[in-house]
Amino acid sequence: MSAAATQLGAVLAAGGPALAAALGRTEERLAAVAAGHGPELAEHAAAMLTAGGKRLRPVLVFLTAADDSDDRLVSAAVAVELLHMATLVHDDVLDRAPLRRGRPTVFATGGREAATATGDLLFSRAFAELAETGSEEAVSRLSASSSALARGELMQRADAWLADVSAERYLERCRLKTASLFDACCRLGAHFGGAPAQAAELGAFGEDIGLAFQLLDDVLDVSGPAERTGKPRGTDLLDGTVTLPLILARAEDEELRSLDLRSIDDPARAEEVCDRIAATGALDEARGQALEHVAAAKARLDGLELTQDRALRLVADGVVERYA
Amino acid sequence: MSAAATQLGAVLAAGGPALAAALGRTEERLAAVAAGHGPELAEHAAAMLTAGGKRLRPVLVFLTAADDSDDRLVSAAVAVELLHMATLVHDDVLDRAPLRRGRPTVFATGGREAATATGDLLFSRAFAELAETGSEEAVSRLSASSSALARGELMQRADAWLADVSAERYLERCRLKTASLFDACCRLGAHFGGAPAQAAELGAFGEDIGLAFQLLDDVLDVSGPAERTGKPRGTDLLDGTVTLPLILARAEDEELRSLDLRSIDDPARAEEVCDRIAATGALDEARGQALEHVAAAKARLDGLELTQDRALRLVADGVVERYA
Repeated sequence: MSAAATQLGAVLAAGGPALAAALGRTEERLAAVAAGHGPELAEHAAAMLTAGGKRLRPVLVFLTAADDSDDRLVSAAVAVELLHMATLVHDDVLDRAPLRRGRPTVFATGGREAATATGDLLFSRAFAELAETGSEEAVSRLSASSSALARGELMQRADAWLADVSAERYLERCRLKTASLFDACCRLGAHFGGAPAQAAELGAFGEDIGLAFQLLDDVLDVSGPAERTGKPRGTDLLDGTVTLPLILARAEDEELRSLDLRSIDDPARAEEVCDRIAATGALDEARGQALEHVAAAKARLDGLELTQDRALRLVADGVVERYA
Repeated sequence: MSAAATQLGAVLAAGGPALAAALGRTEERLAAVAAGHGPELAEHAAAMLTAGGKRLRPVLVFLTAADDSDDRLVSAAVAVELLHMATLVHDDVLDRAPLRRGRPTVFATGGREAATATGDLLFSRAFAELAETGSEEAVSRLSASSSALARGELMQRADAWLADVSAERYLERCRLKTASLFDACCRLGAHFGGAPAQAAELGAFGEDIGLAFQLLDDVLDVSGPAERTGKPRGTDLLDGTVTLPLILARAEDEELRSLDLRSIDDPARAEEVCDRIAATGALDEARGQALEHVAAAKARLDGLELTQDRALRLVADGVVERYA
């Protein structure tokens, strides 16, 4: 069993039967979305919508609720997962990715037209599910997060091949393209879970673990090993995406500083550059920053006296441990 | 001046200063969206968002309102236009289109990653604008319409190269990918315009003119002339998209019935097939069906005693006259 699966098991154990029941209802609702919008969506997205995965974003919605009895929490959980999946489907079109989680992508089975439309449909359904709660604040929150995800992608695209991007700008990108949705999940949990006064603090908790999540993803792209991450090392370098490990390593290594990113044109060369980045100690420094965000996230929980305090801390730790 | 511009002028004249003022506020709000979400969106979408166009969907929102004083009508108008533009941006990625309305597309200036993310951002902003109205019903309506647009695209994709698709299925595709948003515009106008009891009838009016709009678009793809439509004849045939003219023509012409669509592999051959379709009288029949939808739409207005009855009828006529 993978570390990630063990970790999810620990979270489920700590969350108790209420969390398991809520996640079960989320799965049922996702299956209903997949089945309820025509044979084309069912064909293209059903496998993806019901394939499981960690359901990390729904878990955050449920665990940040003080009172888990409001059915609107399930609507919120379904909405954030649909939004996340919409972005994955579009990402797979852009990356021409044949597989995700070991299964063929919508792009692979349906082509780019079908995958683009499927992503658009999932976006729309996310807002439809959340609108059913009748909460303008919730819909506005999801819209803002959805805009942020797209803006983060646009920034990353604008920064492509710019080796001297600053750490501040890199972190802003991470905040937009990853952490904003974690933030929204936690705020939605607080909003529908009877603890609106804790929404800002829980949102900040979500943002911190979202940042840690993205930082570690970017470390893993350099460190591998490929057998664990499921993709070759250095894919970001080959895409022209500059992340924190390279930003930190350039400060230490003159040769990396003068490297033209466009000269990295094959996987073997990308691995060499990964090794050179690792040699500067940049990976440990980036991992250290991720751990600081996890620690900051957990510190925000102190004093909130949440029902699911222990399970939430396990989620925070899980972000770091997933490939440990 | 083009027929379309003349027509818009007539609608504006009939709509009076209130319509002009409402459209002016819509333009201001679209410009604010373009400017307010980071330099990347501004770079990619500002030109498109502020390029004008007929603003047919916002016009429908305003003209179906009995009382045009509610500022939420402007939010609804901005939302439907943003949603429409999101779909155009994604369509241009799929079609690799260099130009739209004579200007470079987001795909052309930013590439497919930037254009996909820009479309996603416009989708998100559409829902954010509408959520600000605080109306769950309105957001649900836009979500349903947005899902329908995507489902229509998925169906069209699934039907590609199927020469024997039925007229019923073709019309269902038109209803989903085009008419559903016209329907939503009119319902939103009724909803925020103080006439919720008329929403269903006005929605049906919108659906009818939406169907007429799409039918005529598909006729124009076969009839041209290219100087008026801005694109060569037969682009649908080259894409494998079967529309009503071909469906009707196949019933009359044995050679068209046995034609393998994949054998139409260059523009000259596509024009020949267009001529053959025209020779069967199918274009007049399809135009006739469009006119029936326009007549049905106008008949729905009888007895509603709308403030903007005359301007709405001009919009309905304009759908037919745009390239007459």
